[in-house]
Amino acid sequence: MKNKVIADTLKNIPWQKKPKNLKDPVWRYQDNPIIKRDEQKFSNSIFNSAVVPYQDKFAGVFRCDSKSISMDIFVGFSDDGINWEIESDPIEFKGAEPEILKREYRYDPRVTKIGDKYYISWCNGYHGPTIGLAYTTDFKEFYQLENAFLPFNRNGVLFPRKINGKYAMLSRPSDNGHTPFGDIFYSQSPDLEYWGHHRHVMGTYPGDKSAWQSTKIGPGPVPIETEIGWLLIYHGVINTCNGFVYRMGVAILDREQPWQVKYRSKNYILAPQKLYECVGDVPNVVFPCASLVDAATGRIAIYYGCADTVTGLAFTTVDQLIAYAQENPLEA
Amino acid sequence: MKNKVIADTLKNIPWQKKPKNLKDPVWRYQDNPIIKRDEQKFSNSIFNSAVVPYQDKFAGVFRCDSKSISMDIFVGFSDDGINWEIESDPIEFKGAEPEILKREYRYDPRVTKIGDKYYISWCNGYHGPTIGLAYTTDFKEFYQLENAFLPFNRNGVLFPRKINGKYAMLSRPSDNGHTPFGDIFYSQSPDLEYWGHHRHVMGTYPGDKSAWQSTKIGPGPVPIETEIGWLLIYHGVINTCNGFVYRMGVAILDREQPWQVKYRSKNYILAPQKLYECVGDVPNVVFPCASLVDAATGRIAIYYGCADTVTGLAFTTVDQLIAYAQENPLEA
Amino acid sequence: MKNKVIADTLKNIPWQKKPKNLKDPVWRYQDNPIIKRDEQKFSNSIFNSAVVPYQDKFAGVFRCDSKSISMDIFVGFSDDGINWEIESDPIEFKGAEPEILKREYRYDPRVTKIGDKYYISWCNGYHGPTIGLAYTTDFKEFYQLENAFLPFNRNGVLFPRKINGKYAMLSRPSDNGHTPFGDIFYSQSPDLEYWGHHRHVMGTYPGDKSAWQSTKIGPGPVPIETEIGWLLIYHGVINTCNGFVYRMGVAILDREQPWQVKYRSKNYILAPQKLYECVGDVPNVVFPCASLVDAATGRIAIYYGCADTVTGLAFTTVDQLIAYAQENPLEA
Amino acid sequence: MKNKVIADTLKNIPWQKKPKNLKDPVWRYQDNPIIKRDEQKFSNSIFNSAVVPYQDKFAGVFRCDSKSISMDIFVGFSDDGINWEIESDPIEFKGAEPEILKREYRYDPRVTKIGDKYYISWCNGYHGPTIGLAYTTDFKEFYQLENAFLPFNRNGVLFPRKINGKYAMLSRPSDNGHTPFGDIFYSQSPDLEYWGHHRHVMGTYPGDKSAWQSTKIGPGPVPIETEIGWLLIYHGVINTCNGFVYRMGVAILDREQPWQVKYRSKNYILAPQKLYECVGDVPNVVFPCASLVDAATGRIAIYYGCADTVTGLAFTTVDQLIAYAQENPLEA
Amino acid sequence: MKNKVIADTLKNIPWQKKPKNLKDPVWRYQDNPIIKRDEQKFSNSIFNSAVVPYQDKFAGVFRCDSKSISMDIFVGFSDDGINWEIESDPIEFKGAEPEILKREYRYDPRVTKIGDKYYISWCNGYHGPTIGLAYTTDFKEFYQLENAFLPFNRNGVLFPRKINGKYAMLSRPSDNGHTPFGDIFYSQSPDLEYWGHHRHVMGTYPGDKSAWQSTKIGPGPVPIETEIGWLLIYHGVINTCNGFVYRMGVAILDREQPWQVKYRSKNYILAPQKLYECVGDVPNVVFPCASLVDAATGRIAIYYGCADTVTGLAFTTVDQLIAYAQENPLEA
Amino acid sequence: MKNKVIADTLKNIPWQKKPKNLKDPVWRYQDNPIIKRDEQKFSNSIFNSAVVPYQDKFAGVFRCDSKSISMDIFVGFSDDGINWEIESDPIEFKGAEPEILKREYRYDPRVTKIGDKYYISWCNGYHGPTIGLAYTTDFKEFYQLENAFLPFNRNGVLFPRKINGKYAMLSRPSDNGHTPFGDIFYSQSPDLEYWGHHRHVMGTYPGDKSAWQSTKIGPGPVPIETEIGWLLIYHGVINTCNGFVYRMGVAILDREQPWQVKYRSKNYILAPQKLYECVGDVPNVVFPCASLVDAATGRIAIYYGCADTVTGLAFTTVDQLIAYAQENPLEA
Repeated sequence: MKNKVIADTLKNIPWQKKPKNLKDPVWRYQDNPIIKRDEQKFSNSIFNSAVVPYQDKFAGVFRCDSKSISMDIFVGFSDDGINWEIESDPIEFKGAEPEILKREYRYDPRVTKIGDKYYISWCNGYHGPTIGLAYTTDFKEFYQLENAFLPFNRNGVLFPRKINGKYAMLSRPSDNGHTPFGDIFYSQSPDLEYWGHHRHVMGTYPGDKSAWQSTKIGPGPVPIETEIGWLLIYHGVINTCNGFVYRMGVAILDREQPWQVKYRSKNYILAPQKLYECVGDVPNVVFPCASLVDAATGRIAIYYGCADTVTGLAFTTVDQLIAYAQENPLEA
Repeated sequence: MKNKVIADTLKNIPWQKKPKNLKDPVWRYQDNPIIKRDEQKFSNSIFNSAVVPYQDKFAGVFRCDSKSISMDIFVGFSDDGINWEIESDPIEFKGAEPEILKREYRYDPRVTKIGDKYYISWCNGYHGPTIGLAYTTDFKEFYQLENAFLPFNRNGVLFPRKINGKYAMLSRPSDNGHTPFGDIFYSQSPDLEYWGHHRHVMGTYPGDKSAWQSTKIGPGPVPIETEIGWLLIYHGVINTCNGFVYRMGVAILDREQPWQVKYRSKNYILAPQKLYECVGDVPNVVFPCASLVDAATGRIAIYYGCADTVTGLAFTTVDQLIAYAQENPLEA
Repeated sequence: MKNKVIADTLKNIPWQKKPKNLKDPVWRYQDNPIIKRDEQKFSNSIFNSAVVPYQDKFAGVFRCDSKSISMDIFVGFSDDGINWEIESDPIEFKGAEPEILKREYRYDPRVTKIGDKYYISWCNGYHGPTIGLAYTTDFKEFYQLENAFLPFNRNGVLFPRKINGKYAMLSRPSDNGHTPFGDIFYSQSPDLEYWGHHRHVMGTYPGDKSAWQSTKIGPGPVPIETEIGWLLIYHGVINTCNGFVYRMGVAILDREQPWQVKYRSKNYILAPQKLYECVGDVPNVVFPCASLVDAATGRIAIYYGCADTVTGLAFTTVDQLIAYAQENPLEA
Repeated sequence: MKNKVIADTLKNIPWQKKPKNLKDPVWRYQDNPIIKRDEQKFSNSIFNSAVVPYQDKFAGVFRCDSKSISMDIFVGFSDDGINWEIESDPIEFKGAEPEILKREYRYDPRVTKIGDKYYISWCNGYHGPTIGLAYTTDFKEFYQLENAFLPFNRNGVLFPRKINGKYAMLSRPSDNGHTPFGDIFYSQSPDLEYWGHHRHVMGTYPGDKSAWQSTKIGPGPVPIETEIGWLLIYHGVINTCNGFVYRMGVAILDREQPWQVKYRSKNYILAPQKLYECVGDVPNVVFPCASLVDAATGRIAIYYGCADTVTGLAFTTVDQLIAYAQENPLEA
Repeated sequence: MKNKVIADTLKNIPWQKKPKNLKDPVWRYQDNPIIKRDEQKFSNSIFNSAVVPYQDKFAGVFRCDSKSISMDIFVGFSDDGINWEIESDPIEFKGAEPEILKREYRYDPRVTKIGDKYYISWCNGYHGPTIGLAYTTDFKEFYQLENAFLPFNRNGVLFPRKINGKYAMLSRPSDNGHTPFGDIFYSQSPDLEYWGHHRHVMGTYPGDKSAWQSTKIGPGPVPIETEIGWLLIYHGVINTCNGFVYRMGVAILDREQPWQVKYRSKNYILAPQKLYECVGDVPNVVFPCASLVDAATGRIAIYYGCADTVTGLAFTTVDQLIAYAQENPLEA
Repeated sequence: MKNKVIADTLKNIPWQKKPKNLKDPVWRYQDNPIIKRDEQKFSNSIFNSAVVPYQDKFAGVFRCDSKSISMDIFVGFSDDGINWEIESDPIEFKGAEPEILKREYRYDPRVTKIGDKYYISWCNGYHGPTIGLAYTTDFKEFYQLENAFLPFNRNGVLFPRKINGKYAMLSRPSDNGHTPFGDIFYSQSPDLEYWGHHRHVMGTYPGDKSAWQSTKIGPGPVPIETEIGWLLIYHGVINTCNGFVYRMGVAILDREQPWQVKYRSKNYILAPQKLYECVGDVPNVVFPCASLVDAATGRIAIYYGCADTVTGLAFTTVDQLIAYAQENPLEA
């Protein structure tokens, strides 16, 4: 392993070896999708979801759209990170302000462990989509905080530690519909209540150079800290004459000034090519929301939504992602 | 059987038992699609179509798009409701007024038996889409009446008897393109020539509560009369970033004032999830246009278009639909 | 006077002589606008409105948008057809069905005298714009009937007598927004409750031949019966890169089959060119909703909305309009 | 004067008496516009701008679009609030971070005095429009702070004192173009660097009830504190078939919880009706950005942009505005 | 006069002195508009038009939209360049190919003298807008050539001499509607029948730097040859929330490689600010199609369409335009 | 063989017999797709591509989109026309003008042999899409010529010989995005540098008659010369509520005046129906770019892109295509 990872060892990370002869930096779990659309009691689909190691096993927060296509987030548990038991009722939040607790819709969660707390961030309906924030210590009781930003925003992803003494978040400002634009921004907070110091991190590429990310980009899983920088897996979108295609890319951000991009891959690392990624409620989508990383081996397991319908699992390593970002660089 | 159906006994209704452990209220015929895209001599696709019991067998009016993608309606016959023989030439109408007989395009037929006559209603091109009306007694000769409404309208569905002494019709006013809105209305007529007394029946749900029907809804098969009310299977549409998804829902309308909704299911009853529903000329469409019902058992066979390409068959019962509508209610 | 008019003599018709050297078939009242935007107590604007002779004087139904830009219709009276007193409160309708009486919005009224009754038709909000109908005999009490059509429709204009034993109406089917299309249709009714026998009358001209009416057209004032046919003043719209321009045109419809167009002028008869027609809440609009005609002289006074803000008056004669339609014909 | 104002006495407030017989709550300065489009050396237009009392006279920050239609903000001074001298060069900001100081574009400034400092907030280009913040004590040196929010936002307006110990701001989240939506939100900050505690204040009215504010609304001048609550003048927009119309309205917000609306006027208080408001680079716009208030008399002078071209002045009083909001209430 | 002009002396050029204290490089004729909307017998409007010196007087080709809003081009003559007599019938072309002679629509002409011939280029309907070409020697007989390009194109402007032995043309490729994009290209031809060697000359400026030309730009009058380069007056467009605004700019192109831009003014040189430029069939348009130049004095008279309704005249000099382009440069 | 083909004998044309009972005029290779998406070293997809006989084997120019979704064209070779070896690096062009050699993007190539030279035409980025031209004699060295047209254009296809002494090309003028319109035009050139004599060949069919080609059409492979006329395979597009569907049609053009259409099939000849045509980066696309023809037998092998992802092969014969065009004629 060339690149040191600043994270915990995760011995029971789900894993499969890279297929022989495969040139690609990321490879799929052979029995994908790991979670089918109707595995939860009332679900139409289970997709853009977040998992973390928890008490030697795994816990997660899952986006399950109901059969009325209501979007909400649910807790689930797993022994192996592959077979999941998802609860029948959505998460119920506690908190101080009824104005904030009032539910409109919730989707695309991320989970970030900072200290003893597991923070959940998600797209939260409050007169438009914005970033909801909450924490739990036991995946039973959840305390909701203030929304991080004014609408309209999606894909709020916390860093797993304070940076320069401040909490730090990536997000993608957007509008109130099927937003046809979107860059990644960095914001910081002294207390997870007030946010400021907003910095542009990276934007789309409108031309031919890297067209898969020409319409919008947004942060995916919690960034992985390595000696060389924060490893960021993100989604990029192109607008074809038959709709949006969502793919996955990788970038490396400066460790202390994460709004500085050190490397960014010109090529995608995973694209919708399997039937369960190309066919579903929203065709041609791979959308990463979580990853597990084992600091000892650099192994990474990526959880990603497929066609807004099912949940897939894919593998890579820190070394391969970093090499890929460095070898196919996209100049700013 | 809990709920009494006001209809004929239909001993030879096509039928398969509900698969074990299935929670859903509607289940597919195992050899779907029952009609492939090219079963008619010149057809590119055969989908949104209507069938009725006829002389101890079955007759139907089928939407067949030609290989020039011209839309027209054709007669077909079947012994078992599953294997169909569809004629090579479209229906030729007789009638009084050349202005009305002139064909622009015809699609999405329904067939309703009232007394001795089989009435066909369909989306009829007359300076924009409106509701065409005709009747036959033998599926050989067809007499075309005046168009029911001014353009623009789609999905005109007659009730199978007069209500309050008047013929009654559900429809979905629309515009001249891929209409991004649409509610269900009720209209009545003393003579099938003049229509009035228009009432709003039900509309879309723009928010998260029942998002599968947030863009437009329209009536499907001829309503089934039960003691509790008219059982209405309808289609609902959501607009995703990659296009419309058409699903099926159920509602129960008041027997004497059918513009009053007694129950309406928050959840869809069938959604495009099989490959033949998700892939085709228009992906992600299930679109019901007819049902057969057996009053003795409450069994229902639903005929529905799949991906605007082939025809599927699905089953349910009156009791299950009513229970589903009552147990997942959508408050107005 | 060459062309015989089938109407009453109207000795006190407002009138000004045609300016010398003017080639145009229609000329403006010299002190236009006759009604300013704030002449009614709460009004932001007073424009697309209808007037009729009433008890040797004049009565009218006026569209007054309030200072909250709520659209409603109000009664007004005048001794001379030029100076108007408009009531402070909108018309309150009586009628059988609360469902129909419930007000959403009301605009663009027409008034047609048939027998002893003055019928008001207007754009009525009922889950979308449709045609509201009501009558009065004294401009004090108003009885509302069923809406004539399903949504979406605007500009419902009744003929001043039954044709072939039926009430007859022109209208412009539309959609639920700033409709970018629209043709004129004819419908008939035995009882003003049920409507049918819908016929296409005339459509837009998409090319260069008569581009002022290339986007949409709709009927204006109540048609004037002449020996040669029904004289129809209508509006036509072109879509420029800076918005819609509404102009006025003229057509002559067959007396017994008014869906047959005998003549139609290629040229507009009046266009927004005065400052009060070009500048206002909606720039570049002249929109005729009513006319007075004197059978003895063939004089016509046209009332029209200007820039959706004020009310203008213009003059012409039956002979001049007919000659203009015949001399600048638009072939179908 | 019925309503007590919590503000300074302003003896030299520009003033004209209300015209006799005028029912409206706001009246225009008789020699409007007070600032013509080319009064600044390089200007194409001078409009949405902010003024404050300064050293017994007046200072202001003006939006001047150049003849290349570059948007920037400029300092100006006046003895009487009516005749202005505007500098030839735009404001140059000092500050810590080059990333923030880099100019993209600047427009629609507001100026708020809190303690000894004059804070300027404006629409600031930073990878999309967001809210720029700066302060000055002498209108010579300006220190720029962090942008308050992530893009996309417009119309950031600071309250003139801390509320509940926090700085407070109203704003209108938007998108990156001619935004067709927009509500008013409230945010607070301990230090003018980090912002949170975002609350929805009020939204648009999509139906007929108050259609002038059916498309978007945004805060205008700095709120005026009165015993009954914060007096907020704001803009509201309707989308006609020929473009947006911007008008002015009034609301009263709770003093300690300003996200609670106590009263809101159904009617606009000023609308584009004069030629200089209806004709210009963007027709049909009145857009208020500043007001002066005299606590002794309750007199208010409103500065507003006209047609995105020139600057107008209008007058009202605290009592009249409050009465108007209370007498024409818009229920939530 | 600093800059030598390569052109004829034009003693009778229409002229007015520059108003005192005016900073702008272009000033209007004091009795603008010189041609009113209805000066031609059947015209609704007379605007984007071309004039040339002819036999010691002036001839021109005028765009007159008829009262049916049919667009065509007409010959006119004038003794002084200000008072014009325009013919009642449009130009009738002779030529070899009926396919090319068939008229769809014609608008926005330019006239270029090369040798003894006066070439007319215009926007010509041929299955979409493209560039029509014809010539005359006497303004009585006109011979139409092949269309220069495939659709879609507008604003074809010939250079007044061959360059590098080839005919040369500027144009603006577009689409089939109200095109929201457009750059200026250069093409050459050995024979005015076959065209090639297409070069990009200059494009729009999407950001704040020169926003008046951020949506599209197109060539205006025939370029004026000077020692420093070709003086090009062109139009630029910005898209506001209430529509397009058309303004005038200036650039200097290399004499032998006219696709090389030597100077380009950041600022517009004329913008719609007078009532006849801001109000009309298409508000807020100044659109230059022709200029006269006197080589002896460097005086220039610009003819331009106003609000797509009337024709205006403005003045400048070669020296002032060149200085303006050099002093307000727009870096590529 | 009924129809004589003017072409070379091609003994080793790839071939499979028509399946029994198949009514369709075109049938697919049984092991389609012949080229998978990742067969080239860096490719995301390999689709709209051109092949020709070359030295008793086959050569081709392939569109390979990279994993950054950069579009470029690559040389490939094959012994049998089915198994292809595609080079890893895109074609590098030589030529005179750096301005023309500068690469923006390249896609959808065609290859036409005229005399000894193989001409490549493709969609070439030059300030918008236009038609790039180059030639090779050995598929190693490529010389780029001037772009044929101004932007915006796609699908430039050369005829395989001069017609009336001129080079001839078909193309589809378009705009700069996902163009929703498009007709086929004919242009000619004396020298492949200057182009003119543009003629409209055929357009779309907006109504029901042949709706599969109602949105846009464009030329496909190089036309095949037969005694009866040029056999043109082309693509046609319909716009459904879920995106564009691209199908294949056939027409026969006059031999000496190829802008005259002698026959045109109302029906498509191939439509996306197989999974690899319906599912991929752009669903529901078959797009023909090349064909091989054997003059001795009339056999045709069509190479076509599938879902913008893989390359398919299909077969037909000259006789069958001509019969099909004649038997299902589309009247102009």
